[in-house]
Amino acid sequence: VTDRVCYACGATGAGARCACGEPLWFETDPEAVAGWPETPEPSLWRYRALLPCDPPAGLGASVGGTPLVRAPRLDADVGGAAVRVKFEGAHPTGTFKDRGTAVGVAGATAAGRDVVATVSHGNMARSVAAHAASEGLDCVVCVPADVPAERLTAIARHDPTVLRVEGDYGRLYEAALAAGRETGVAVLNSDTPLRVAGQKTTGLEVLERSSPDAVVLPVSSGGHASGLWKTVREAVAAGLVDAPPRLYLAQAAGCAPIAEAFARGDETVRPVDPGETVAYSIANADPPSGARALAAARETGGAVVAVDDDAVLDARAALAERAGLFVETSCATPLAAARDLAARGEVGPDEEVVLVATGTGYTERDVGDAPTPDAEVVGLDGVADAMRAAGDRAP
Amino acid sequence: VTDRVCYACGATGAGARCACGEPLWFETDPEAVAGWPETPEPSLWRYRALLPCDPPAGLGASVGGTPLVRAPRLDADVGGAAVRVKFEGAHPTGTFKDRGTAVGVAGATAAGRDVVATVSHGNMARSVAAHAASEGLDCVVCVPADVPAERLTAIARHDPTVLRVEGDYGRLYEAALAAGRETGVAVLNSDTPLRVAGQKTTGLEVLERSSPDAVVLPVSSGGHASGLWKTVREAVAAGLVDAPPRLYLAQAAGCAPIAEAFARGDETVRPVDPGETVAYSIANADPPSGARALAAARETGGAVVAVDDDAVLDARAALAERAGLFVETSCATPLAAARDLAARGEVGPDEEVVLVATGTGYTERDVGDAPTPDAEVVGLDGVADAMRAAGDRAP
Repeated sequence: VTDRVCYACGATGAGARCACGEPLWFETDPEAVAGWPETPEPSLWRYRALLPCDPPAGLGASVGGTPLVRAPRLDADVGGAAVRVKFEGAHPTGTFKDRGTAVGVAGATAAGRDVVATVSHGNMARSVAAHAASEGLDCVVCVPADVPAERLTAIARHDPTVLRVEGDYGRLYEAALAAGRETGVAVLNSDTPLRVAGQKTTGLEVLERSSPDAVVLPVSSGGHASGLWKTVREAVAAGLVDAPPRLYLAQAAGCAPIAEAFARGDETVRPVDPGETVAYSIANADPPSGARALAAARETGGAVVAVDDDAVLDARAALAERAGLFVETSCATPLAAARDLAARGEVGPDEEVVLVATGTGYTERDVGDAPTPDAEVVGLDGVADAMRAAGDRAP
Repeated sequence: VTDRVCYACGATGAGARCACGEPLWFETDPEAVAGWPETPEPSLWRYRALLPCDPPAGLGASVGGTPLVRAPRLDADVGGAAVRVKFEGAHPTGTFKDRGTAVGVAGATAAGRDVVATVSHGNMARSVAAHAASEGLDCVVCVPADVPAERLTAIARHDPTVLRVEGDYGRLYEAALAAGRETGVAVLNSDTPLRVAGQKTTGLEVLERSSPDAVVLPVSSGGHASGLWKTVREAVAAGLVDAPPRLYLAQAAGCAPIAEAFARGDETVRPVDPGETVAYSIANADPPSGARALAAARETGGAVVAVDDDAVLDARAALAERAGLFVETSCATPLAAARDLAARGEVGPDEEVVLVATGTGYTERDVGDAPTPDAEVVGLDGVADAMRAAGDRAP
């Protein structure tokens, strides 16, 4: 596939345009076309045998199959390890939450429920509202009464019923589960069994396509970490991996109850007074699966690491500038943590490391400083000189 | 996979929590795990035999494999046809541009170039800057001197060299190609051969996973439409499809030079004075592949359709409220066009229709009216009643 041909006059040529003025494209061999690959739909439902229900009819049937991106220019950041980024921002609503929601909504539908609910004013709310919309279920989203307007707008685009709940937001998680039991509404909170079954598929995809020594992911409620741990346990039980990966969980230092419990050697997590952090979407002061997350880190030989805001913002910039990935601020915590782990020798130069970037940066408004480009102003006749100068600067 | 078990004490239970207080998860069968599927990486490089170069080392190697989402609640909008949405917003930088960029950057690298460039102040600029960042190439982005600050910020996160070019932006496209020829910089504009080779893979994935009668996509420069047409021609030449899909191209009425040429029966496109439209990212007044786009629509038995802004915003809301997909405003033009086509009988109730949603809505700031949720305020003890009321309202 190297000949450039004009669709209009049939002539071959070089560059972008034919002598006749029309654009060129590459000629291909019909024999090669006949041999094109037929790969199965790469959704998470290829793991149906490991999931509790069948796929839903709409959006949730296509969730999963996110890219595992090689990031060679970040290897040096992690002591020379081979770095890959599992980019969960590729999901329809921009985060890993769609996995748990897909299985949760499918399970609720299979059980005959016609209303689903969740407690969240961020990624999970948007995800549950979107999937319910696709299936034609009603959806109740419980948010704190003082939710920021821009986040409410993003949720409201999928037209759920929104409850602004006054009172202790920390108690709302369990209160909603209780209300679900009372009313028959399927409450898909962040660490419920259906959701964790869906979140497990992040790990299945990572282990299907790579053999990491370490997997680093942000931790908030502990639901996603539980899912990854479940994958590792299943893979070990089935004899699929000889050396299962160590699970490292990253928190922002401003709100790090699981990291603090890990440092103390505790088996359970004490609630903390939440501080401010740029990684606000993982600032969970009283994580419902905190103990399970601690077990996940400890039993796989990993750790729970707290990183400060400057390190998080610097890692976010590194992901954009050297891996081409602009992630949600909280999703830069794994790179910040991996840098620390490499510095203290917990990750070695011959290892493979997977950083789980749980969401795209496009869903949040500017957090931290926005970059100011060093932009030169030129006329049309100055473009070639400016390109030449860029070439002279290139490595 | 139906038993819920406690990771901590091993007891089985129902609901979200074990009697011991810890969360439950679903038990699985190690035999089923041992049989987990091994699917090839679903990136566009599975079509290597149809592409002009090998994959790059970083980000571009993982591009493609976006979901083809079934949207049953939109069928009635399109006269009862079965509607699927090819969701290109799943790409790393949020749009279909990553396909062309991945092949373009790989081709430039294979040709020994160390600088890539593009003309854009939107999706393509962000995409080229991101992929160049991942590969360690320098990148020159040519933007108009009066580019909106928020778009420049999004581009600047990947640290390219930015040229603010004064003068006629319409002439910059060809001026940049000429400067590239003069300086050896690889200019990856929207309809260049490498880019069209990459964009072709949208069509390959659609035809690999479905047999649509009609494919509807937004058209701007005509590069993506050219890629889809290339796919159809290749599939026909190889005998892979009996009845190739008709290609329908959608423009916003405010800037619709290709639709106007189609309506006139012309074979080439006359530049227009661009009007305002909410679908600003496809408002191309002088499309470089306009004639090729016209040929694509005509030779496949399709059409080029212009839709007004109200129809575009209404279609965007329908995609969010009934398919769970929040798309870039310009990417709602295919649903608006498909509604018109169904209304005039050009798409039939027994047909399969694929709408190409070329980008996520999260990359743009609020365009058009933001929804205001009808939010009820309740206390913690009012959550169950509110859920019950939602259940009573459910369909």
